[in-house]
Amino acid sequence: MKQKFLGYQCSLCKTEFKPGEVTYTCPKDGGNLDIIYDYSSLQQDLSPETILSSQEESLWRYLPLLPVDQVHGRGTPLQAAGWTPIFSPPELREQLGLQSLWVKDESRNPTASFKDRASAVVVARAQEIGAEVVVTASTGNAGAALAGMAAAVGQKAVIFAPHTAPPAKIAQLLIYGAQVLLVNGNYDQAFDLSILAANEFGWYCRNTGYNPFTLEGKKTAALEIWECLINRKSFGRPLSVFVSVGDGNIISSLHKGFKDLQALGWLDKMPRIFGVQAEGSAAVANAFSAGTEDINPIAADTLADSISVDLPRDGVRAVRAASQTGGAYLTVSDVEILTAIADLGRVGIFAEPAGAAAYAGLHRALKQNIIGSDDSVLVFNTGSGLKDVNAAMQAVAPAVIIDPTLSAVEQALDLSI
Amino acid sequence: MKQKFLGYQCSLCKTEFKPGEVTYTCPKDGGNLDIIYDYSSLQQDLSPETILSSQEESLWRYLPLLPVDQVHGRGTPLQAAGWTPIFSPPELREQLGLQSLWVKDESRNPTASFKDRASAVVVARAQEIGAEVVVTASTGNAGAALAGMAAAVGQKAVIFAPHTAPPAKIAQLLIYGAQVLLVNGNYDQAFDLSILAANEFGWYCRNTGYNPFTLEGKKTAALEIWECLINRKSFGRPLSVFVSVGDGNIISSLHKGFKDLQALGWLDKMPRIFGVQAEGSAAVANAFSAGTEDINPIAADTLADSISVDLPRDGVRAVRAASQTGGAYLTVSDVEILTAIADLGRVGIFAEPAGAAAYAGLHRALKQNIIGSDDSVLVFNTGSGLKDVNAAMQAVAPAVIIDPTLSAVEQALDLSI
Repeated sequence: MKQKFLGYQCSLCKTEFKPGEVTYTCPKDGGNLDIIYDYSSLQQDLSPETILSSQEESLWRYLPLLPVDQVHGRGTPLQAAGWTPIFSPPELREQLGLQSLWVKDESRNPTASFKDRASAVVVARAQEIGAEVVVTASTGNAGAALAGMAAAVGQKAVIFAPHTAPPAKIAQLLIYGAQVLLVNGNYDQAFDLSILAANEFGWYCRNTGYNPFTLEGKKTAALEIWECLINRKSFGRPLSVFVSVGDGNIISSLHKGFKDLQALGWLDKMPRIFGVQAEGSAAVANAFSAGTEDINPIAADTLADSISVDLPRDGVRAVRAASQTGGAYLTVSDVEILTAIADLGRVGIFAEPAGAAAYAGLHRALKQNIIGSDDSVLVFNTGSGLKDVNAAMQAVAPAVIIDPTLSAVEQALDLSI
Repeated sequence: MKQKFLGYQCSLCKTEFKPGEVTYTCPKDGGNLDIIYDYSSLQQDLSPETILSSQEESLWRYLPLLPVDQVHGRGTPLQAAGWTPIFSPPELREQLGLQSLWVKDESRNPTASFKDRASAVVVARAQEIGAEVVVTASTGNAGAALAGMAAAVGQKAVIFAPHTAPPAKIAQLLIYGAQVLLVNGNYDQAFDLSILAANEFGWYCRNTGYNPFTLEGKKTAALEIWECLINRKSFGRPLSVFVSVGDGNIISSLHKGFKDLQALGWLDKMPRIFGVQAEGSAAVANAFSAGTEDINPIAADTLADSISVDLPRDGVRAVRAASQTGGAYLTVSDVEILTAIADLGRVGIFAEPAGAAAYAGLHRALKQNIIGSDDSVLVFNTGSGLKDVNAAMQAVAPAVIIDPTLSAVEQALDLSI
């Protein structure tokens, strides 16, 4: 196969760069870079069947559409990222009055969040360019993902996280053997510091909304939705996709994945993409509502730590993901997020707050008639509830403690049983 | 296909029962029941290729070898249990000086432990017999698995757990909407109480070492090892399997899975099965060492809560799993378990204490020359480290907290970076 990875294009000024010319953002205006492919050559060499017949039960089934040369970390968790299940819980469908509802459960990734997709591809890139150390700032999940994927192939990793990250996420970072620096400050300060340190020490920086390879890894979720739903003969309906938004990189990646498929001629109808933010961390939603791509930083405050971001680093592309697809932005309160955790839990899906936010957003969209009962909807759960047990406990009534006697059982039982 | 599920045979007195005659243990002596199949009819109807070509990416690919009629919970987490990845981390292989080493990572199950296999099949059985409520006693994982699998199909569940279960496991029970009763007592008291309650209220009881269907669900892990490793043309070597042991049901299930395969003529050489117990919870290992099948209860004390059991309810079959396969039992200290958590973490696998115990046991076996460098070894990680973060934190040094300045980073960095 010919060289497929042609280079980069700035998402703001549209300047193009060759693969060796730049590493992170646009040297002219700091815009995020989109990776561009030789689509016409890919079209000649590839057909959907090439992908559909892949034996890889992971995101590596899309290697021909990724900017790395080979599958790295064979036989390790790095090879096992992605290819997450898509559920269609009948009870939720009924509750919401939707004919078609899917939940794509990213908590089933190796480190239990969507971020493994980005980290798998960034670590593969790091191996190909011979980077000695990979560094990232993270609210927790991206760091755990980098630490886990790096550990899988013996790649050194340094993680900057706000010291307020939930204990389970910090435990993951440490267990995976990363060098962990908890910053007395928020995510945005950790972000700036990690870039300073990367430049100072010559580390390869994975930061989202900065390193263009994260988007490419994450876009595989869109490719999976295409392969498992849209591409099926019986489908044929327009799809609406709901995803929570923090720094804006995941929603931008879904857009990129679908755009890549359209460029290949494999996708007729672009899905509508809906971003969901916490009311207390709604910088992208604010810009979308104002009809602008100018992102104004806010002072973020939400229990959904993974999407608690003052300044979304991928805000422009995140606005476009909704505005260019006929989607929209919705905001939800922390109380709505907790309710969504309980709703998903009752059908066997345990989501962290940021993961459940998208489902809360779907509720809002139905209430506001943005989505109707005949729409086909896919909602992402972006991370495992095991990552933030304290938040989960706020979503449910506490357990009853009893003495080990049958009479205590009888007393304690709900009448509903 | 003809009726494949012929009935039960008591593991102690060998009495056989028809499917409708008994529900749990042997009415004569309380022995655990083995489910028996019409192997000759299965041999006629089935070939390995039937299984190998299955499109199910879950334990349901083995439906022809399970005692239920159909896949329940399509499109839900119930359908997504099992079919966990098998890693072959090069770094661990090198550290241990082993030519062939695999880690089967059960943390990738829907509720993040091996127990989903049992609960998936028990819930399927509950649906087929029209049970209104399913109940279990659990140290946490089995309960979470039952709660999650039951939630997936709207099946009511009641869980008895010791009030000392780790917070993450209790959170899972509650989030999945089960009726949770935390017992002021240990697992063994919760076990007895759950059976009392099941009898009193007419609930279907999932308890391990009691309900014969748990073993059948769990045996699918052995079927996966056969399909993904042993059955490959390039394999041909005898395999040694290491798994941690609490009540003894998982190790017994592996034995049953391999025995089923031998009965079908699909497995030439029985793998050697090694059970690993915590030193403070070693009732089965004690019996094995004494060359007896009489299990004496102990007062269990280990940080590995999932395998902390006074009286193993499946102890007899657990002893046989090792004694009848040329395997053995090993015991490991809590310190060795913590070291194993860190060892596995450094290659990207985050195990809970009980999950890491098997790897600690492999270390012991190598030290004692029970396993040599030319042996082929598979080690189970039976559950996710996210289930017990407090234990994980004991396995590693704490993270460094720094101010958001470059000089603070320089000061904090290990010289190793």
